[in-house]
Formats: sequence, C-alpha cells, structure tokens
Amino acid sequence: MTNSRFATGSMIAIALLVSIGIVAAFTEMARAESSLSWGPQWTADGELVLPSGYHEWIFLGAPLTPHGLNGGKAGFPEYHNVYVQPEAYKAYRKTGEWPEGTILFKELQLTRPGTSPDGSSIEVSGRGYFPAARNGVDISVKDSKRFKDTNGWGFFNFGHHAPPYAETAAAAPKEACAGCHIANADNMVFSKFYAPILEAK
Amino acid sequence: MTNSRFATGSMIAIALLVSIGIVAAFTEMARAESSLSWGPQWTADGELVLPSGYHEWIFLGAPLTPHGLNGGKAGFPEYHNVYVQPEAYKAYRKTGEWPEGTILFKELQLTRPGTSPDGSSIEVSGRGYFPAARNGVDISVKDSKRFKDTNGWGFFNFGHHAPPYAETAAAAPKEACAGCHIANADNMVFSKFYAPILEAK
Repeated sequence: MTNSRFATGSMIAIALLVSIGIVAAFTEMARAESSLSWGPQWTADGELVLPSGYHEWIFLGAPLTPHGLNGGKAGFPEYHNVYVQPEAYKAYRKTGEWPEGTILFKELQLTRPGTSPDGSSIEVSGRGYFPAARNGVDISVKDSKRFKDTNGWGFFNFGHHAPPYAETAAAAPKEACAGCHIANADNMVFSKFYAPILEAK
Repeated sequence: MTNSRFATGSMIAIALLVSIGIVAAFTEMARAESSLSWGPQWTADGELVLPSGYHEWIFLGAPLTPHGLNGGKAGFPEYHNVYVQPEAYKAYRKTGEWPEGTILFKELQLTRPGTSPDGSSIEVSGRGYFPAARNGVDISVKDSKRFKDTNGWGFFNFGHHAPPYAETAAAAPKEACAGCHIANADNMVFSKFYAPILEAK
C-alpha cells in the first residue's frame, strides 16, 4: 500500500515534469517562430511584400517639408512618419546598429489644408501644421547580401497616393533613392532625425 | 498486471490533465494581471506616475505649431508627438470609444534650429521642420469616476523641458487644461488629428 502510494506519487511527479517539458518546448517553438517572423517578406520573384500592422511599430520621428516652403516642389510635401519594427528597435538600442531585416517604414501623411502661403493653418493650439490623410509609403530594408551594391540597404516605393498602397514592390533603381542616401545619409539612413527617440534614456 | 497498467495509465492521464489545468490557470492569472497593468498607476496621494516604455506605444500624430509661425508665443512650439497604449488603441478600433484607463501621452519634441524667420531649416529633403531633442510631457487620462468634474478626463504636466521629466504629477486645475479641451475638443481629446492613423483600414 505504501509502495503503491509511493509509485503513484512518483508517476504523477514524472507526468508533471513531462508535461511541463512539453509546454516549455511549445513555448520555445513559438519564440523561435516569432523571432523569424518580424523580418521582411519577399515574393518568389524578389519583390518586397507591404508589411501589415506597421502602425503598431515604433515611431521614430516626423520630418515635414511642406510644399508651401518649397515653391510647391517638395519631393515629399507631407509628414514623413517613420516607423521601425519593435525587434529592430530593441536590437539597435542594445548594439547601436540596425540588425539584418530592419525595415524603416516611411508613411507620408498630408497636412490639413493650409490657409497661409506656407501651407500652415490655424487651430486652437496655434498656427502650424496638423495631420490629415495618409498619402503614401516608402520603405528601406537592411539586407547586406541582397543589396550589397547599395551598401546593404534596398529602397521601395509602394505608391505616393491615398491608400490602398501597392501590395508588393520591386527595389527602386540605384539612381532613384540609394544614390541620394549614399551621398547624404549617415550609414544610408537619416539617423540624426531618429536619434532623439531611438536613443532616449 | 493489466489493471495495474490501466491504473498507471489513468493516473498519468489525470496528472497530465491536472498539470494542464495548472498551466492554464497560471496563463489566465498572467493575462488578468496584464489587462490591469496597462492602465495608469497612481501614488497613494492620487498623483499620476509617469508611464515607462511609451516610445513603444502607438503613435497617433504629430501636430506642429512652431514659434516662428506664432510670433514667438506658441504654447507648445514643438512637435506634439501623441501616443496611446496598444490596449487602448485596440479597444478604440473595436468600439470607437476610448476605454477607461486610456492614456493619451503627448511628448514635445523640438525642431532642429531654424534658419528662416518661420523657424524652418534646410535639409537634403527640402526646407521644413525636422525632429530634434525631446522637451516635455503632457498626459490626459480617461477615468470617469476620478475626473467626473472634467468630463471624465484628467490632465497632467510632467515638465516642459529636456528629460528627465517629473516622476509623478498632480492633476492640473480645470482652468489650466480641461477648460480649453471642454470648449474646443471633440469628446475632450483632439480626435480629428488622430483619426487618420487611429481609424486606418
């Protein structure tokens, strides 16, 4: 009777350990899958798939170059809302470098209609620029092998217009984007505009 | 022997079910804790604790009212970067209303030093406004009981200067913030500026 109880107790203990092991294994599988899933998705012919859920990524800054201050000829007259994946953000804050698979996602956002020549308008908080409709997406991806000819970054345009945006996009030719980034940006991306948030203590 | 094997099998099965139950119970406890943990934290004397990790929240928009366009007298001459907790964002997208515990977090961010009277400067992307140092935090919290006298929202200032910000803040008097929000905002918050991102399909 005592032996039998002892045996029963042991078996329950073993069963518990086994099932804890199973749970741990599943948790680890889920973790491993998720660490792969944050990177860019590519079509069979090498186009970048428009990421989903980017409004839940990390916001890095919103440079603004209105038409009204650029003789009506701003390349991007909207807010440039820049986001990055949470995983890349965490890696950057740890190492000071963008990991392979980083997506810098720029969504353009119109300003509310201007009432001054500079394009500004007036709200209760004062005269300035205020967010309005979303109007386009440009993306840069870090992939040192795929984009070895443009310092490890590829550039993509998903449309400069109201949503819906293109579902996939081919890398832009070097002259279209990478050339300017090579000439003007630090390490290919305009980190100085992102540093205040990216490096916040 | 057969009976004993049957008994052993049953006991292992029972142990497995019990341990799955234990795991499920822990998971549920963790879930319940986390659904509480996203809301505001209060000190014993009713001050709001500055939330941490807000750069990982959802960005809603960046109104900008520079000094250069306001005779040097803008109340908030910086970018008004507005964030909300992911949980409140998800609830709003589901129901169209901010849940109790919503924190609208406004971090002020200076623009890079201006070279024109309007405060704009010139970068490779054109003339405009570009993000620089963080410079202050204002918060509004939805709590219909605590702030029943100001339509369910309380307003807090954690400093209008470079970090570090105040660790806690008392609710601002009605005249300081709530009065203007009552008079000018839709349902106490400036939803029209957030709608393009908040309601994005």
